[in-house]
Amino acid sequence: MKKLRVGIIGGGRIGKVHATSISRYVPTAEIVALADPFMNEELEKWAHGLGISETTKDTDYIINHKGIDAVLICSPTDTHSDLVVAAAKAGKHIFCEKPVDTDLGRINKTMKVVRECGVKFQIGFNRRFDHNHSALRKRVTDGTIGELQIVKITSRDPSPPPVEYIKISGGIFLDMMIHDFDMIRYLSGMEVVEVYAVGSVMIDSAIGEAGDVDTAMVQLVLENGALGIIDNSRQAVYGYDQRAEVFGSKGCALVENDRPSLVQTSTAEAVSTEKPLYFFLDRYMAAYAQEIIEFAAAVQHDLPVACGIDDAIRPVEIALAAAKSLKEHRPVKIQEIL
Amino acid sequence: MKKLRVGIIGGGRIGKVHATSISRYVPTAEIVALADPFMNEELEKWAHGLGISETTKDTDYIINHKGIDAVLICSPTDTHSDLVVAAAKAGKHIFCEKPVDTDLGRINKTMKVVRECGVKFQIGFNRRFDHNHSALRKRVTDGTIGELQIVKITSRDPSPPPVEYIKISGGIFLDMMIHDFDMIRYLSGMEVVEVYAVGSVMIDSAIGEAGDVDTAMVQLVLENGALGIIDNSRQAVYGYDQRAEVFGSKGCALVENDRPSLVQTSTAEAVSTEKPLYFFLDRYMAAYAQEIIEFAAAVQHDLPVACGIDDAIRPVEIALAAAKSLKEHRPVKIQEIL
Amino acid sequence: MKKLRVGIIGGGRIGKVHATSISRYVPTAEIVALADPFMNEELEKWAHGLGISETTKDTDYIINHKGIDAVLICSPTDTHSDLVVAAAKAGKHIFCEKPVDTDLGRINKTMKVVRECGVKFQIGFNRRFDHNHSALRKRVTDGTIGELQIVKITSRDPSPPPVEYIKISGGIFLDMMIHDFDMIRYLSGMEVVEVYAVGSVMIDSAIGEAGDVDTAMVQLVLENGALGIIDNSRQAVYGYDQRAEVFGSKGCALVENDRPSLVQTSTAEAVSTEKPLYFFLDRYMAAYAQEIIEFAAAVQHDLPVACGIDDAIRPVEIALAAAKSLKEHRPVKIQEIL
Amino acid sequence: MKKLRVGIIGGGRIGKVHATSISRYVPTAEIVALADPFMNEELEKWAHGLGISETTKDTDYIINHKGIDAVLICSPTDTHSDLVVAAAKAGKHIFCEKPVDTDLGRINKTMKVVRECGVKFQIGFNRRFDHNHSALRKRVTDGTIGELQIVKITSRDPSPPPVEYIKISGGIFLDMMIHDFDMIRYLSGMEVVEVYAVGSVMIDSAIGEAGDVDTAMVQLVLENGALGIIDNSRQAVYGYDQRAEVFGSKGCALVENDRPSLVQTSTAEAVSTEKPLYFFLDRYMAAYAQEIIEFAAAVQHDLPVACGIDDAIRPVEIALAAAKSLKEHRPVKIQEIL
Repeated sequence: MKKLRVGIIGGGRIGKVHATSISRYVPTAEIVALADPFMNEELEKWAHGLGISETTKDTDYIINHKGIDAVLICSPTDTHSDLVVAAAKAGKHIFCEKPVDTDLGRINKTMKVVRECGVKFQIGFNRRFDHNHSALRKRVTDGTIGELQIVKITSRDPSPPPVEYIKISGGIFLDMMIHDFDMIRYLSGMEVVEVYAVGSVMIDSAIGEAGDVDTAMVQLVLENGALGIIDNSRQAVYGYDQRAEVFGSKGCALVENDRPSLVQTSTAEAVSTEKPLYFFLDRYMAAYAQEIIEFAAAVQHDLPVACGIDDAIRPVEIALAAAKSLKEHRPVKIQEIL
Repeated sequence: MKKLRVGIIGGGRIGKVHATSISRYVPTAEIVALADPFMNEELEKWAHGLGISETTKDTDYIINHKGIDAVLICSPTDTHSDLVVAAAKAGKHIFCEKPVDTDLGRINKTMKVVRECGVKFQIGFNRRFDHNHSALRKRVTDGTIGELQIVKITSRDPSPPPVEYIKISGGIFLDMMIHDFDMIRYLSGMEVVEVYAVGSVMIDSAIGEAGDVDTAMVQLVLENGALGIIDNSRQAVYGYDQRAEVFGSKGCALVENDRPSLVQTSTAEAVSTEKPLYFFLDRYMAAYAQEIIEFAAAVQHDLPVACGIDDAIRPVEIALAAAKSLKEHRPVKIQEIL
Repeated sequence: MKKLRVGIIGGGRIGKVHATSISRYVPTAEIVALADPFMNEELEKWAHGLGISETTKDTDYIINHKGIDAVLICSPTDTHSDLVVAAAKAGKHIFCEKPVDTDLGRINKTMKVVRECGVKFQIGFNRRFDHNHSALRKRVTDGTIGELQIVKITSRDPSPPPVEYIKISGGIFLDMMIHDFDMIRYLSGMEVVEVYAVGSVMIDSAIGEAGDVDTAMVQLVLENGALGIIDNSRQAVYGYDQRAEVFGSKGCALVENDRPSLVQTSTAEAVSTEKPLYFFLDRYMAAYAQEIIEFAAAVQHDLPVACGIDDAIRPVEIALAAAKSLKEHRPVKIQEIL
Repeated sequence: MKKLRVGIIGGGRIGKVHATSISRYVPTAEIVALADPFMNEELEKWAHGLGISETTKDTDYIINHKGIDAVLICSPTDTHSDLVVAAAKAGKHIFCEKPVDTDLGRINKTMKVVRECGVKFQIGFNRRFDHNHSALRKRVTDGTIGELQIVKITSRDPSPPPVEYIKISGGIFLDMMIHDFDMIRYLSGMEVVEVYAVGSVMIDSAIGEAGDVDTAMVQLVLENGALGIIDNSRQAVYGYDQRAEVFGSKGCALVENDRPSLVQTSTAEAVSTEKPLYFFLDRYMAAYAQEIIEFAAAVQHDLPVACGIDDAIRPVEIALAAAKSLKEHRPVKIQEIL
């Protein structure tokens, strides 16, 4: 099987994650070119070090490159829609970092183009490809826990981003909890019908002054009547806290945090284990590789993608409903914001 | 120190729990008499077996007994208020099973009498005396987790009570979740300001026909802005599921379920541990003893009780607010129902 | 059923443990009298506080007491044999703290008398009655792990006894590891055929000067060829460490230490759980009660005792073989020391 | 930094492991050529698929290749010594799978040549590079557990190799437990002084007929007097069981088995977690990569190797002492077999 030839647009943090992950851990894909409007000598050197021979400031170069099968869009959110449309029209398969946009109308328009062009489209919800989360989901899909009745997600970052970032982030629901909205859909296999959101500023008052909250909880009702809860904190001092639990008619399954090692130490002071992996890259590096491995397989074998157009739209809808719920202090049906 | 001489009113399930627990595990108290309007030969024999010499159908016998220091009220809920008032006026110290009443006005009137009479009054929220829950609370009160920001309680029964019981139970919030409302106050050391409740019928449609839900979630806001969540299910097939988690500025603490033993078994099929203790008596027997040990100490040494008048009132207020929230499908402030 | 009327000989630490445990937790037995050659006002007061009305310096008083069914021998080891013989001849049932003696010939003679007199005899290996150890054994007896192939015991005290005690203790194998020799037999349901012992002085050189070791390991071969290992340390700074593991053709089972609570705490420094229970009384208090409950039942219902004459003899044989092995630096068959 | 150019000798199971691991996970090395006397079309195709361009039946081709910096010797054990000597004389750095030989005299001669030639030499004890084992060792080297007093290793394979393999394996101590002898030295940072071995045939009588045991235990004394124990089984039906524990004056540290995920499932039947990783490749794949990463770094930066000449010799000495101990049924000093 020929390798999938990809071009990456965007050489920032997440673009570098994918470039590194693909060149190290994805034997079925190769990176042909990297484009970034701010391409400079340092970034070029870094790319060559990974074996990426072509670098450019021109994103169209990637879009129009005859030797490229698929485009990875890792640029800032406000450029995603235009790039997706351009790539789709050029007949390229697309992997796009989440979200496609923060405006639902625009997402829908963009997705319509993708559908019409018939290219593969995968959205970057990396957590679906984590070994723990996918093992947890299997307990739902294989019937182990019976009919789902309760689903709980704990999702806490080790430390808040800069307030400057918070200001342009779109708010905690679109920026952070959107991963958990996706996870609720992934774990349950169901759509969310209604949400109720509460939030507090408990970590840094500057976050409040920027119009956001740093501690949030969203209660969700799923289509079968099952009840969900997500809690987010911008600061868990012990590390990146990513746990989930599903409960149903036949039982319960939950997943703990991965840790650097399984050593347990007993001293006169305490019995202790290692803390959860601190950075999201430590926790999810294997998941980043796995999502591209599955994307490549979907393209190469013409299979459905693991995380596609609907998965790009629904979590944004839920996030917008949550934001509306927080603002209006009442439960909001997803239907209301369509 | 002379033993505390107690009289028990009510020889049903919970009355028997206390009688057994005191005679076996509370060296600082002795049971002088047991009263039950349905006293019969079998119950008398059972009481004598425990060394309780006086048995009667007449609850006034207990109230007026010169040799009794304290009354344990273990009769049906609708008799609690009258018995509390009678006992208080007779100068007896009082331990009363929860709740005092399901009507808030009546509770307040009853508590007013207790206050005026100056007797000790303890309400029967036994879980506060569980070694796990009290160890968890210590992580809050000793500053280990810093300022509380999130509190989560999982509370699931092994199997639902008979529908006939559900019908007269006052609903899931007053009957079952009231323990968790108390636990939120106990763990946080704070009052609840607002609640939002959702519920579903997912286990037995007969529960829905009886006007109740069998799966419920209540989101709570505490006075410092901390966010809480409680989930209840009437049926966790793996046993009585009683877990809690507190999260704050300096860390997180959580407590797992007790199990009959800590044996772990690895076979070709699975790696398994024992299931949680199934019945509430298995899980909380030591807590039942401990709550009377502390009640006896409060009386004997004139100390504040561990769980008193306010603790008898507040959880009922929260439960009524939750019921109103579920009915009106909106967040409800505790203030609204006072 | 009438309560078993017991007399206790010996009011030292272990005598007090049994007196407390019986009066609090053994509803089927009552303590009629306590004898101790060093009976004084303080001890009398303590006994009366527990409701023991008769106290005496005269051990014969217990032996000859018409109102006593069973004698608990909790005096120093060198008095056990004579007291057992006297009690047996007086027709009393006997519970004797371990060991009966440190001289094998004398144990055998004493046991012969017990057999002839036909009274019940139970030896005080309390760990058999621990909920964790008995749950572990069940994985062997119910076939869960198949044929036993490997058994491992970790047994470490929190801190060494005074060197003065070490000097008269009979050595680590007779004083400390004897419990583990019993546990090997209990868990496996098999006899030990051969042992090989090593030891070091790593904690306190005074222990070495007293002729003993403070760190020891004994490798054992069981009758079916299964291999066992026991490790002992006189000082585990994190608390009383009591773990065991059984491995066989169908799997493996192991048991962890009990802890005061199951709280887990995550902070910026560490993820920690509580340390093992520190004192043997904290860990095994319930086991002390359970062993007397089962002794009482054996007497009252004429059942075999859970831990009888053979169980009093075999662990001493193994301990003597281990001591010989350490001294002669070679494997020693149990057969050699009979 | 230029990549380390390696040639691999041996295209069997372990050769393929290293080839795969290097091409996927070792960015600092590249495979120039693969030699195998049984090179065939299938193996060639496999090598080319990994991007290895040169394949040959001639091992000398690798030894004499000007473009090769280091040789990985992955051929059968009886060829190791000759190849090591040839490679050393050709000035190639050497990574050699364990053991160098089963004859101690020959190992010593071979190692002498390596020393004289001054090339880097690393022996393939992969477990040292496992994240769990190295984290455990850190608890010893950083002083967390104080002075080491007890070390315990559990090491059990999921299923026995074919009896034909057993016959030529050199016996359980040289074939299987040699990894654990290395691990004892690695964890303790000390040499073994004396061993005592026992063994049984409990899994397959054909193994006994082949002159070997399938269940073994070796007791070890370290140079500071610390006591060690290793248990081996050829068949743990629940998977590859690799645990270790170190105990000392300041505490205890232990490490559990890695599992495919951390999901815990509670049903009416059981509370279960995943079984240990079953195959050694699943468990140690990352360790295989890490050992070559460190080998490459040692060559490129002229650093000491993590696992060198002494580490190639000592475990064989211990294994031979253990075999002698089992045969002669007595403790054997390492000194005796030198």
